[in-house]
Amino acid sequence: MKAEIITIGDEILIGQTVDTNSAWIGSELSKLGFEITQITSIPDRRESILKILSEVTGRADVVIITGGLGPTSDDITKQTLCEFFNTTLVTNQEVLGMIELMFQRRNLPMTENNRRQADVPASCRVLFNAAGTAPGMWFEKGGTIFISLPGVPLEMKYIMNEHVLHELKKRFSSRIIIHKNIMTYGTFEARLAELLVDFEAQLPSNIKLAYLPSLGIIKLRLTGSGNNLVELSKQINEQVQKLYATIPDYIYGEDEETLEMVLGKILKEKQLTICTAESCTGGMVAHMITSVPGSSTYYKGSVIAYDNSIKKNILKVKEKTLKENGAVSREVAEEMAAGALKLFDCDFAVATTGIAGPDGGTPEKPVGSVWISVASKNGVTAEKYQFLHDRETNIKHFSIAALNMLRLRVLVK
Amino acid sequence: MKAEIITIGDEILIGQTVDTNSAWIGSELSKLGFEITQITSIPDRRESILKILSEVTGRADVVIITGGLGPTSDDITKQTLCEFFNTTLVTNQEVLGMIELMFQRRNLPMTENNRRQADVPASCRVLFNAAGTAPGMWFEKGGTIFISLPGVPLEMKYIMNEHVLHELKKRFSSRIIIHKNIMTYGTFEARLAELLVDFEAQLPSNIKLAYLPSLGIIKLRLTGSGNNLVELSKQINEQVQKLYATIPDYIYGEDEETLEMVLGKILKEKQLTICTAESCTGGMVAHMITSVPGSSTYYKGSVIAYDNSIKKNILKVKEKTLKENGAVSREVAEEMAAGALKLFDCDFAVATTGIAGPDGGTPEKPVGSVWISVASKNGVTAEKYQFLHDRETNIKHFSIAALNMLRLRVLVK
Repeated sequence: MKAEIITIGDEILIGQTVDTNSAWIGSELSKLGFEITQITSIPDRRESILKILSEVTGRADVVIITGGLGPTSDDITKQTLCEFFNTTLVTNQEVLGMIELMFQRRNLPMTENNRRQADVPASCRVLFNAAGTAPGMWFEKGGTIFISLPGVPLEMKYIMNEHVLHELKKRFSSRIIIHKNIMTYGTFEARLAELLVDFEAQLPSNIKLAYLPSLGIIKLRLTGSGNNLVELSKQINEQVQKLYATIPDYIYGEDEETLEMVLGKILKEKQLTICTAESCTGGMVAHMITSVPGSSTYYKGSVIAYDNSIKKNILKVKEKTLKENGAVSREVAEEMAAGALKLFDCDFAVATTGIAGPDGGTPEKPVGSVWISVASKNGVTAEKYQFLHDRETNIKHFSIAALNMLRLRVLVK
Repeated sequence: MKAEIITIGDEILIGQTVDTNSAWIGSELSKLGFEITQITSIPDRRESILKILSEVTGRADVVIITGGLGPTSDDITKQTLCEFFNTTLVTNQEVLGMIELMFQRRNLPMTENNRRQADVPASCRVLFNAAGTAPGMWFEKGGTIFISLPGVPLEMKYIMNEHVLHELKKRFSSRIIIHKNIMTYGTFEARLAELLVDFEAQLPSNIKLAYLPSLGIIKLRLTGSGNNLVELSKQINEQVQKLYATIPDYIYGEDEETLEMVLGKILKEKQLTICTAESCTGGMVAHMITSVPGSSTYYKGSVIAYDNSIKKNILKVKEKTLKENGAVSREVAEEMAAGALKLFDCDFAVATTGIAGPDGGTPEKPVGSVWISVASKNGVTAEKYQFLHDRETNIKHFSIAALNMLRLRVLVK
């Protein structure tokens, strides 16, 4: 059960559009048990389209094609499909009626270009598109199913959901694929791989493990295939339990959970409130926390103390502490967290002070160093971290480290 | 001058990762005058990698390959490149030294997996990667240049910028292409296109105009081609002057300038200081301002008043104002800005209060509405904006609108 995806459009190749359709289609087809063997993006050019259509015939069971179905002259997919499938364009009266109705409802005049959207290759099965004017088309040739869809994500998804996915499921339901993600933070990929050597060695042959790192967060993806959903789910679940037993300190969540989502869940459960005091992260920690819908139930606010005068006047960091230790120090981080805890009257406060770069580093405190402190009624702790990136990435790393430190402290409360 | 892009990684095919690398690479290579003829995404599988490498040999002048260079067992690009180029892995001492140094600096133990990152095919030219541990590799075969890069966007971009782009430019420079971007904010694409009808009509045939909208910011990109650099620069410059004359109110900067960068430039020039008071934007405005290196010279800090108690206790918004008008109102926005101005003792303060969603909207104050206020010693102004997006996008739109309102006020001071 092999599937391929073809996306057509000059805008993809010159990078004006990021191709998000392929990821969505790949994910949906994977869930049905298809193995996605290739994604190909090609320009709106007759020869390129004909070439890839020939290549995939017989090689894939299903090919999803998106793009090139617009009303303007640069879109040539439909004519080229006619050439490839040896057929001609005919007006589909049902589609024409739907387009006319759509324009009537919106009180807009119809152009010749719009009318031409109802022309479809005579040999295809038409997939109606209530989300737009270009219909989808279903062809079969040489043992391969070809499905051509508009490139507009909303329209593509509409036709996939309404017409394509359940029909493919009916025709190809045999092998089942399950993906399960375990989210980790706190160590790097090579170290995790060492800790998981035995785990990887004992994995049954139908389950694969992949490491997907991003900004210190490593997603462990288990992919299992089988014939029996219950059986396979049980198998995957066993492996997940083994992961929890092997690396308990590094796992913070599952599937697409972010640290801020997990933190929010714990805070809601425990009915705790938090606040932040940020220097070098300049609002990023607050932004991540408040990106979670409903965060207003546990997040009270922040002081961003970019200037030292703000650290003193609002967060009540002592002049002496700043002078003796410098702004980037354990002592200042701790006084910032303690000051915020009091000012906002919360259960927990997290504070950051560091050097994001590109300037401001010294041999003792290089760019990328940060002190993070967490304060609660039970006391204040602080930790130092060192990253080695550009300003933007350092700020993200600092913020993720702060969220994780806060999460760990809130967990044990 | 044909180029192709190959991205390797199971996570792309099953849709867990959206391939953003291809768009970035496609855009950069286009700027150098390359025609991108195909983008192909394939799984981490030996046969798939060997097959596509054979196909592109001789067909493209340059092939950029990303992904599959991690330290874990699922990454097999390096071994497969050895097979294709008929060579073996050898340890590169320089790369090993850099990796060792990186681990020393971070005080972390090095593993065998990390050490293996320094193994490279003997026949390649190594492209050093200061942004990570996996180096890039440059091969040539059958008239085609193959460049293999890590899939982590940050590392891929580092090596492209440091090692690849200028070398490709040197080797393939024939026709001269100049891109010039004019950055606008404050109106929508269709309106801008109306205003620029005459401008577009008078453009010489070797200069094209493209509209690239993102979050209310519309980048106008002029692309000119020619044989004489001085001549072409002069031509482009003339068109830029015409744009300034036609839409003066909407242009805020050039090339890749962001609103926060332009704001920072003006503040430095005028030696002014600013602060922020954020409710619904939850730190995003502060984050954007502090993403600019050197922002500490003009940015003092922020109060994020997510909870109404913080608006009252710290920003000194009156209880009565909150009760009579609600938190999302002109009056509260203005008192927040005025309160922050006093608290931080700055020249300008900007405040936001709105409803990002998904919950919290009412018929009178729907999700996506925001009041933004700017205060200075000359008085306080406020404006209401309405957006219609999801939480994340609303927060970004609110923040960009706030930065622009602050920029316009600071400009006329």
